[in-house]
Amino acid sequence: MPLDNNIIQSFTAILGKERVIRGHQLSERYDHIWHMDIGTQAQAILLPKSTEEISELLKICNSEHVPVVVHGGLTNLVGSTETKKGEVVISLEKMNSIIELDEGSRTLTVESGVILEDIHNATKDKGLLFPLSFGAKGSAQIGGIISTNAGGLRVLRYGMTRQLVMGLEVVLADGTILTNLKKIIKDNSGYDLKQLFIGAEGTLGVITKAVLRLQEMPSSRCSALVGFNDYSNVINFLKLADKQLAGTLSGYELIWKDTYKILTTDPSLLKPPMTYDYNFYVLFESMGSNQESDQALMQQLLEDAMEKKMLQDAMIAGSESDLNWFWNIREDVGIIDSQFPYSQHYDVSIPIPSIDAYVTSVRKKLRLELGISDALPFGHVADGNIHFIVGKPDNTPELKKAIDDIIYMPLQALNGSVSAEHGIGLHKKSRLHISKSEAEVNVMRAIKRTLDPNGILGRGRIFD
Amino acid sequence: MPLDNNIIQSFTAILGKERVIRGHQLSERYDHIWHMDIGTQAQAILLPKSTEEISELLKICNSEHVPVVVHGGLTNLVGSTETKKGEVVISLEKMNSIIELDEGSRTLTVESGVILEDIHNATKDKGLLFPLSFGAKGSAQIGGIISTNAGGLRVLRYGMTRQLVMGLEVVLADGTILTNLKKIIKDNSGYDLKQLFIGAEGTLGVITKAVLRLQEMPSSRCSALVGFNDYSNVINFLKLADKQLAGTLSGYELIWKDTYKILTTDPSLLKPPMTYDYNFYVLFESMGSNQESDQALMQQLLEDAMEKKMLQDAMIAGSESDLNWFWNIREDVGIIDSQFPYSQHYDVSIPIPSIDAYVTSVRKKLRLELGISDALPFGHVADGNIHFIVGKPDNTPELKKAIDDIIYMPLQALNGSVSAEHGIGLHKKSRLHISKSEAEVNVMRAIKRTLDPNGILGRGRIFD
Repeated sequence: MPLDNNIIQSFTAILGKERVIRGHQLSERYDHIWHMDIGTQAQAILLPKSTEEISELLKICNSEHVPVVVHGGLTNLVGSTETKKGEVVISLEKMNSIIELDEGSRTLTVESGVILEDIHNATKDKGLLFPLSFGAKGSAQIGGIISTNAGGLRVLRYGMTRQLVMGLEVVLADGTILTNLKKIIKDNSGYDLKQLFIGAEGTLGVITKAVLRLQEMPSSRCSALVGFNDYSNVINFLKLADKQLAGTLSGYELIWKDTYKILTTDPSLLKPPMTYDYNFYVLFESMGSNQESDQALMQQLLEDAMEKKMLQDAMIAGSESDLNWFWNIREDVGIIDSQFPYSQHYDVSIPIPSIDAYVTSVRKKLRLELGISDALPFGHVADGNIHFIVGKPDNTPELKKAIDDIIYMPLQALNGSVSAEHGIGLHKKSRLHISKSEAEVNVMRAIKRTLDPNGILGRGRIFD
Repeated sequence: MPLDNNIIQSFTAILGKERVIRGHQLSERYDHIWHMDIGTQAQAILLPKSTEEISELLKICNSEHVPVVVHGGLTNLVGSTETKKGEVVISLEKMNSIIELDEGSRTLTVESGVILEDIHNATKDKGLLFPLSFGAKGSAQIGGIISTNAGGLRVLRYGMTRQLVMGLEVVLADGTILTNLKKIIKDNSGYDLKQLFIGAEGTLGVITKAVLRLQEMPSSRCSALVGFNDYSNVINFLKLADKQLAGTLSGYELIWKDTYKILTTDPSLLKPPMTYDYNFYVLFESMGSNQESDQALMQQLLEDAMEKKMLQDAMIAGSESDLNWFWNIREDVGIIDSQFPYSQHYDVSIPIPSIDAYVTSVRKKLRLELGISDALPFGHVADGNIHFIVGKPDNTPELKKAIDDIIYMPLQALNGSVSAEHGIGLHKKSRLHISKSEAEVNVMRAIKRTLDPNGILGRGRIFD
């Protein structure tokens, strides 16, 4: 249903003509940063500059039952930023001010359209770290990051986004502004409402500002690559590393043998630091205050583990260039895609002890039932979060579904999750019941109805 | 209104007679562990042994509109466990099983009536730590701890209870059982419902089981006491310590001069490790993996801070007995109570840079307006959380209110909170508006109505 002209006029009365994008101007706008050739289907894109403007816009959308999709950096991986005809986009791109860096409170207050990399740049000169980081940091905006409770490479030490947010300002569907931009770490006065909006994928309110918690910037970084034959020792060594490196362990990434091979052979430009003789390769990292003593601590850890026969091989990054070499292997997983005509990406959570058996069983099924031999796992094993890239010969919906079934179905019995980091959005909606019981989904729906009775925000995301 | 006999009979049909405490048996039961001489006012105490029994009991209470108060370890500090005539207590004391310790997942699954100290004992033999700890650990039950999102001495490193809970089982007011006892760290599949119940003070559901996240047990512990004259250096040194001790800094407690004096003079049996020449005394702690090198790191930190003229005096705990001596000074604040005819305790949150000015201003007002010269502050300064013990000459409601006003009123302008750790319960209800806006309280009420439409759970707690 196309939008009434009166509604458009009301938007224009709030924002002015130049911040209501319509008609032929829309053809230059898109819904996803990886598909900039596909124009948006939305009927208008609104570019508010303030919380109050968003409140006024939502009041209109709510009373007229106009569905709203919020656009941030458009890096979402589960279809949340896709639009349909009759929908309106509120884009936060003009709400990109860094409001305040408070060194004493170690907080950064920002508008929700600020890009993650700009946050990193704004804090590092003060010796402060916003620890969240991932590949899309140059585009992803903090509002979307909070809405999806993003993870990344340092969750093990610093937690997911949920742990890094101290305060939020949110506009509800009816235009109500909830402002809690306090720079306090502890607040047990009533329900902690911000928790509702973190990870709600934009379905309960529009995040407009946030107070982010910062950390002191570590001054040393040490890494090592370790080869294991037994998965049980991947866990044993994680526990030992956590103990001996005390609070400095900041990353612990697992790469399976096949994945490691692909990541270090042509067309990859990266050479393998270690032979292909082992079943599992772990890249781990500590961040502390003294390069020399931290390196010695890591050396001692590896010697102790060697003596306990936990590991087969180990190699410490001896220089900055080694460090970059090792981590590029883990981060340049995009190279895997280029090996196959088509591929599917996965992001699942499993209790740590069950990961290897799950991966082995899934790969066997893919091979036997679908003839697919390339299912390449890697990921944040210390967080119980594994990613898969599955290479496939064609792009039919039937094959997609068959692969999905094999990957997702066992997760219910394992008490895992179909989404560790990326969310549900539109793409994983049909699999939500694997992660959550009917009773839980009913409560989610009840919360949604309470905060957005007309269902205008992110309609159809997470559940129908 | 007394309970209908039919209702009591329904309870008995579920639990059997011996687990429905009524009549003269009730006179031996009480609502708070510090007031065991004051009998409970509740009309019956129900002792379920399972989640299913709780579900059945709540179905009856919900359909008959019987208000329910949940009893755990009865150590609550804001009146949440107090009962009135016509209320029924569900006590979790018989749900005290430790269900599973999973070393690979580093989780402990427990029923909600398990006492905190029993959790510590169950994990320490496996070299694992449940880091939450506080004075009432010998009585407080994990269900109540989660319901109040308890804090304590190591929030700085490990976070509040919210960060330590991986999974929850909850029974809603209508008897619906929400089970999410997964041992996974990351789960972005739909709303994270457990966040609703953590810190909700029992008003949204009854917590029946939990999956707790465990940490590797540190094998070293170092502490030092530091004297400062300037509050700004208390913050500067916190930042330096956090940086140089990297991830091992685990406690940073501030004691004001007057408080330090009272804690180390007769009738206290503890001697002062340091003279009374400074305005601020900070006791801080690191927990790592090597006593010798960690002690050297702390020594280096103190030398660096001395060179920067950040601090006036410093003393490292050289032995286990020093360590206990230092920490007993901080923990034995009960000694303060004995100095005054009556006292009031406070638990407030303030942005870290504003703490000293707030404390100075509050103490001045108490002195000038009420003639009260004993307002003794101490607390978790690195968390922005300060406790006050105010000694007062009488116990009239007027004086209580006048002191409350002076302590609480400035918090709104400072963007602080009237409750950092203890919650709102019954006692701080009239002050909730200082911490939270009307819009926020309205959303809290809407959530409450959605999950407990008849208002049977913890009626009158947090808000009316």
